[in-house]
Amino acid sequence: MATRANSVPHPTLVQVDPFISAHEQRGIHNRWHPDIPAFATVKPGQVFNIECVDWTGAQIGNNDCSDDVKNVDLTKIHNLSGPIAVEGAEPGDCLVVDILDVRPFDKMPWGYTGIFELENGGGLFAREFNSRAAKAIWDFHGVYATSRHIPGVRFAGVSHPGLIGTAPSAELLATWNKREGELVAANPNAVPPVAFLPNATGAYVGQELPNDVREKIYREGARTVPGREHGGNCDIKNLSRGSRCYFPVFVKGANLSVGDLHFSQGDVKISFCGAIEMAGIITFSTSIIKGGVEKFALKQPIFLPSPVDPLYSAKLVFEGISVDVHGDGKQYDMDATVAYKQAALNAITYLMKLGYTREQAYLLLSAAPVESHVGAIVDSPNACVTLALPLGIFEHDILPKEEGLTKKNFGQCAIRSDGVV
Amino acid sequence: MATRANSVPHPTLVQVDPFISAHEQRGIHNRWHPDIPAFATVKPGQVFNIECVDWTGAQIGNNDCSDDVKNVDLTKIHNLSGPIAVEGAEPGDCLVVDILDVRPFDKMPWGYTGIFELENGGGLFAREFNSRAAKAIWDFHGVYATSRHIPGVRFAGVSHPGLIGTAPSAELLATWNKREGELVAANPNAVPPVAFLPNATGAYVGQELPNDVREKIYREGARTVPGREHGGNCDIKNLSRGSRCYFPVFVKGANLSVGDLHFSQGDVKISFCGAIEMAGIITFSTSIIKGGVEKFALKQPIFLPSPVDPLYSAKLVFEGISVDVHGDGKQYDMDATVAYKQAALNAITYLMKLGYTREQAYLLLSAAPVESHVGAIVDSPNACVTLALPLGIFEHDILPKEEGLTKKNFGQCAIRSDGVV
Amino acid sequence: MATRANSVPHPTLVQVDPFISAHEQRGIHNRWHPDIPAFATVKPGQVFNIECVDWTGAQIGNNDCSDDVKNVDLTKIHNLSGPIAVEGAEPGDCLVVDILDVRPFDKMPWGYTGIFELENGGGLFAREFNSRAAKAIWDFHGVYATSRHIPGVRFAGVSHPGLIGTAPSAELLATWNKREGELVAANPNAVPPVAFLPNATGAYVGQELPNDVREKIYREGARTVPGREHGGNCDIKNLSRGSRCYFPVFVKGANLSVGDLHFSQGDVKISFCGAIEMAGIITFSTSIIKGGVEKFALKQPIFLPSPVDPLYSAKLVFEGISVDVHGDGKQYDMDATVAYKQAALNAITYLMKLGYTREQAYLLLSAAPVESHVGAIVDSPNACVTLALPLGIFEHDILPKEEGLTKKNFGQCAIRSDGVV
Amino acid sequence: MATRANSVPHPTLVQVDPFISAHEQRGIHNRWHPDIPAFATVKPGQVFNIECVDWTGAQIGNNDCSDDVKNVDLTKIHNLSGPIAVEGAEPGDCLVVDILDVRPFDKMPWGYTGIFELENGGGLFAREFNSRAAKAIWDFHGVYATSRHIPGVRFAGVSHPGLIGTAPSAELLATWNKREGELVAANPNAVPPVAFLPNATGAYVGQELPNDVREKIYREGARTVPGREHGGNCDIKNLSRGSRCYFPVFVKGANLSVGDLHFSQGDVKISFCGAIEMAGIITFSTSIIKGGVEKFALKQPIFLPSPVDPLYSAKLVFEGISVDVHGDGKQYDMDATVAYKQAALNAITYLMKLGYTREQAYLLLSAAPVESHVGAIVDSPNACVTLALPLGIFEHDILPKEEGLTKKNFGQCAIRSDGVV
Repeated sequence: MATRANSVPHPTLVQVDPFISAHEQRGIHNRWHPDIPAFATVKPGQVFNIECVDWTGAQIGNNDCSDDVKNVDLTKIHNLSGPIAVEGAEPGDCLVVDILDVRPFDKMPWGYTGIFELENGGGLFAREFNSRAAKAIWDFHGVYATSRHIPGVRFAGVSHPGLIGTAPSAELLATWNKREGELVAANPNAVPPVAFLPNATGAYVGQELPNDVREKIYREGARTVPGREHGGNCDIKNLSRGSRCYFPVFVKGANLSVGDLHFSQGDVKISFCGAIEMAGIITFSTSIIKGGVEKFALKQPIFLPSPVDPLYSAKLVFEGISVDVHGDGKQYDMDATVAYKQAALNAITYLMKLGYTREQAYLLLSAAPVESHVGAIVDSPNACVTLALPLGIFEHDILPKEEGLTKKNFGQCAIRSDGVV
Repeated sequence: MATRANSVPHPTLVQVDPFISAHEQRGIHNRWHPDIPAFATVKPGQVFNIECVDWTGAQIGNNDCSDDVKNVDLTKIHNLSGPIAVEGAEPGDCLVVDILDVRPFDKMPWGYTGIFELENGGGLFAREFNSRAAKAIWDFHGVYATSRHIPGVRFAGVSHPGLIGTAPSAELLATWNKREGELVAANPNAVPPVAFLPNATGAYVGQELPNDVREKIYREGARTVPGREHGGNCDIKNLSRGSRCYFPVFVKGANLSVGDLHFSQGDVKISFCGAIEMAGIITFSTSIIKGGVEKFALKQPIFLPSPVDPLYSAKLVFEGISVDVHGDGKQYDMDATVAYKQAALNAITYLMKLGYTREQAYLLLSAAPVESHVGAIVDSPNACVTLALPLGIFEHDILPKEEGLTKKNFGQCAIRSDGVV
Repeated sequence: MATRANSVPHPTLVQVDPFISAHEQRGIHNRWHPDIPAFATVKPGQVFNIECVDWTGAQIGNNDCSDDVKNVDLTKIHNLSGPIAVEGAEPGDCLVVDILDVRPFDKMPWGYTGIFELENGGGLFAREFNSRAAKAIWDFHGVYATSRHIPGVRFAGVSHPGLIGTAPSAELLATWNKREGELVAANPNAVPPVAFLPNATGAYVGQELPNDVREKIYREGARTVPGREHGGNCDIKNLSRGSRCYFPVFVKGANLSVGDLHFSQGDVKISFCGAIEMAGIITFSTSIIKGGVEKFALKQPIFLPSPVDPLYSAKLVFEGISVDVHGDGKQYDMDATVAYKQAALNAITYLMKLGYTREQAYLLLSAAPVESHVGAIVDSPNACVTLALPLGIFEHDILPKEEGLTKKNFGQCAIRSDGVV
Repeated sequence: MATRANSVPHPTLVQVDPFISAHEQRGIHNRWHPDIPAFATVKPGQVFNIECVDWTGAQIGNNDCSDDVKNVDLTKIHNLSGPIAVEGAEPGDCLVVDILDVRPFDKMPWGYTGIFELENGGGLFAREFNSRAAKAIWDFHGVYATSRHIPGVRFAGVSHPGLIGTAPSAELLATWNKREGELVAANPNAVPPVAFLPNATGAYVGQELPNDVREKIYREGARTVPGREHGGNCDIKNLSRGSRCYFPVFVKGANLSVGDLHFSQGDVKISFCGAIEMAGIITFSTSIIKGGVEKFALKQPIFLPSPVDPLYSAKLVFEGISVDVHGDGKQYDMDATVAYKQAALNAITYLMKLGYTREQAYLLLSAAPVESHVGAIVDSPNACVTLALPLGIFEHDILPKEEGLTKKNFGQCAIRSDGVV
């Protein structure tokens, strides 16, 4: 019939199996390095798909026990698909990337959010809470997610890549390694560590390479944990399907890599494995603006958010000021991180009044489309940060009432087999 | 005719003249202290107006020179109207405050945004920029503001009180003074100071009081600069007309005070006198939830934002990571304040490519309905903060273009009479 | 002090008293005619205020009886303030009007919505319901309205002029009178009448004029009920404060008139006196685009909505199709008016399940920020129209529940002294 | 690895091939009738997929000629997948349907919008324009659509089923056939016809059935063109992925059918094949509320819109009043259909000033996320309807400018091989 003609699917340039270990698959790498060759090349304007395993490379299971989170091998993260070279891109150009779609594999309609152990990953409250492994499994029902581990909520995901970036130049990589090395050197005994330095253990590149090249990459390659000047692990929920990003180009071809897909995440990614982590498919098209780094003063990526985000307009908002770290009651000097922690703690305490456990609340704030705004960082000595909990994600009324809040029993999320939380 | 019957205006409980020095007027105080008596009392449910002078108490003029900003007397800020007691409120209760409206005086349809001197007020970039006084005057045209000092922008204000809070108890006040005193003691030579401690100079209470009471208030009263557990100078743009706030009550009657009205402010209040400062009228109603502090775990206010905010959905977003303070290139450990500064600097640099001066850009980010979100504070060592510039506030297209950005001449904002910027 | 200098309020070009009959006041007219001289003249770019009485000119009172609605004199509506001439405007130009603000008088913080008698005004359901006079008084609390006659709702107003337009030319006026006369001639006995033709009774112009001129205006002047090519009584809620309108100019000076201010109205203005009617102040500025009628093919006004509308994103939506007028069960041919009626009836029936009376529901749909969208008018024979009831305006949960809807007692709105509804 | 366990995809209950004629495939029917047996049965709460061919059943091709539209066989539309029975549903119940996702087949990333011939389908302007076949092919790039036939626009789709409904009872079906038959009888020579009556030609049911049953269905089955009390072809863009619908149940099992998927449609579906028609996959879950028809007074479906719609807040709005049908200049009596046509014509004329052809403009209004609101239907004799064109879908500035509009050359959409438009 008429519809068959000219029905050409968009090509899939990296194909992966979300059920197989990432290091056994082609097209997946887990370090940033200029010497990782392009795995595929596209022309500007072409629409293409990239498949991604989840950020751990299939280490976390759909079950009711968090031992897999406890024992996760963090030398193997994050698993990135690519790099994809764009014809004509040169250092100093701006690579325009349209994130056209992000979705889970049909055969894996679930994801997870995890609290990591203090000694293996940590998280914003790892020290305050002396965190032990916990997790929530989320089931995907089309645009919605629900969790048997956090009953009473249901929300539309604002899907996006947690991690996307262009390859660094050798100079930029050296800068990263130097400055992060200095930070670690200044905090030698921090638990969790203040930064993750290059580490050959667990590294892979997803391609056949000469031994010396591969070993150089393993030895020097920047870890994927932080976001940096090239993008990387920014965990910005607004880099969602429908958004347009402007990346600085540091190497010929730009060499774009992507991974760590999220079905949903709010502003408040506070557990180390915040967001609803998933494996899935991302669709891109690209273009190049010659000399864009200079034209737009691109020190880091800039972007246009998508028009398609979920609209949860009614919210309950919590405030935090830069006073008190783990009960010390101290005044901190316009420290937005402390203020943010306080706002999150205030929200967690409120959710516990409704019957959620501390772990459930911690996971929920990381996974749901929560917003966090910086109010002001100028009213010495207090920074003020807000955290807005959308009312529409709850199946029950959570508003303050004359008679107080009704405490329900929501059970508990998945915890360790030894019962320690 | 028929309409005359039952036409009863809402009462105005504090009446001020925006053209007269605040300390000469009744009902205006500028310190937080439990012993300041209620200036007026309302019943729960009553709708009432409160008039406010601008935060400086008429020190800043509608002119083209910033000398008044340079010489502003900061011992006299912020000027608060009140306190207003609510019948029946007791410590431990929750005071529900509906912010029903906020608007300028008809006779003073303008406001201002200021960059303060490094040595007199400072601001987020006071040290980096070695700030000298500058300002922008904004003209109000109904819901819109424009400025002859920052041409090419026009936006709807999201009006709100910069400063609103209940009176502290003696215990809470003592806690504030102790913790802030310790911070100052630890940073004795900071310029600008890291906190503003009690200071009898410039203090007033707007009422006749016995000398010993007044002097105690002057001696002990907390300064108004930071937001604290009672609300205060939170500078949260979402506390706008139409919002409902839940304040903890610390003294009998709650003793609500308000001031520092803003015609508009974004999340990014980065200049010390960010926001569009105005004198005006705020309309409230209140109710009481007995024992609300315990019921809702109220460590700080919580609130429901208004449904009436301006909707500028299309935005250009800048990112910042916690690297580099004033060019040091250093890696900071998940410091959201540094990340926020970087996002703001990236936006300022971009605006300068369009032709705005650094001062204009600094003021614009403080005054316009800009959004700043915390992305993630968990991806060690980089916190990631975004700053979203709404496209709809510009009268010209500011998007990245293939051909680069067009640099226009927007002149300069109001600067000092000696020309120093 | 510094603030006094250059504090110049926007001028008020038409000043009225909302408690005095409209025909006794200067600057108020109630017919459209090219020969009504400009009451005031402005320059392009100038910001100015216009005061307006309510549309009936003070005929309706703040009380609990609808007899004033029953007996309202409709020859005296709508009361328009103006006309305002804009220097330089010529026929064929486009008059750009910025609606900068709309607000009630401080001394009259209330408004009303009315169901009119079948024989005196009517309304969309006048015949189906055999309408008798009823009304709801709304109290304004800043941006919010509530009504003692319709308990359980509270919403932010999206204030706008129900009626705004430029003066018609003699030719355009003749066209109106001809086509409307033909419609009346074809439906001579309709109750309520299908159109209101020129009628000297009750007419006034708000200015001293030679008798012959005044009498010509009275004799020929178009009634104000319908919207027409010049704007007029379009009752578009989106012409709200913050919007920019482009009007065709038909006479020298454009001669803009405005009145019938609404504190709030949804898309669904179904009672003849739908909307929350108020007296108040509107703020404008204008500019001229020469030859704009041709440039933009202006057959009627076009406009840019305001960014400041209330955001009630969660809604319950009712559908209507073009079947059934007053129980006849008949199929109508893609008739959007019938479909709209059905959607409104479905919503009214639903509200009655919640305990509202039919009159309360009818008034509420007219006054609240309800949305009505045309779905499709192409699927013969059914047009499909939707009506969306915002959940956030109700103080209780109105969603469909497994256990059905809870019927509360909300009393009744204001009805006639003889008790007939 | 860990992810393999418990990875169970949602089942697909109807599987189709979008490249094969609908009548050759199982599970596709194109009439409404109570005797069509359920094709599959689900339990309440189950998540499942349904695949759908495009509404014509593969009659329209991805090419640059509209002859396929000219010759389309309308006896074969609309192709519906199902019916799906829900265990436990009985007449009088309410079937709650969650539309969890709607997306095109990966292998068919395109869709189309068509103008149909006056004599074969028609459309809102079929008579005014004497419509000849034309079409636009849209390419899907993730959430976005673009068309080589309408250059200069790109927008995010708000995907939804154009047609979804429960099976009618025998009584309801008889009512439909009676009332529509009477309308046709009263307009015997209308071109296009005012309604489509039962017609055995082209009918099919997608299942093996006894001859007498099948023939009864063919003879009596209601055509799919209009929306009716059971839902059906409502073409409501807000029934989008993420929405929850409440359908009345008329037969045991409810027997839900769905088809006519749209990648995008605005409120303004004015061409007979408005919307961007596509083949694809829809994901559902269901639940039952016993006795819901009575509980909620369900005369027609009601629904909760999705939180995930595209947000295009800046718009240019056109008005229409109920004057003039095809140039007759006549006054119509509060006829919203006429007002809607006028608003659409005003928008089409404006788009032609920008360089689009009349056919391109007609197709664009049908396909893009345009909004159309009913302003008021009470201001006799004019109904007022608005049409809002989102600025963000255009790649160029379409706002009114001092200097007028810039007319570009956008070519033409796909037209007939004989060149007639």
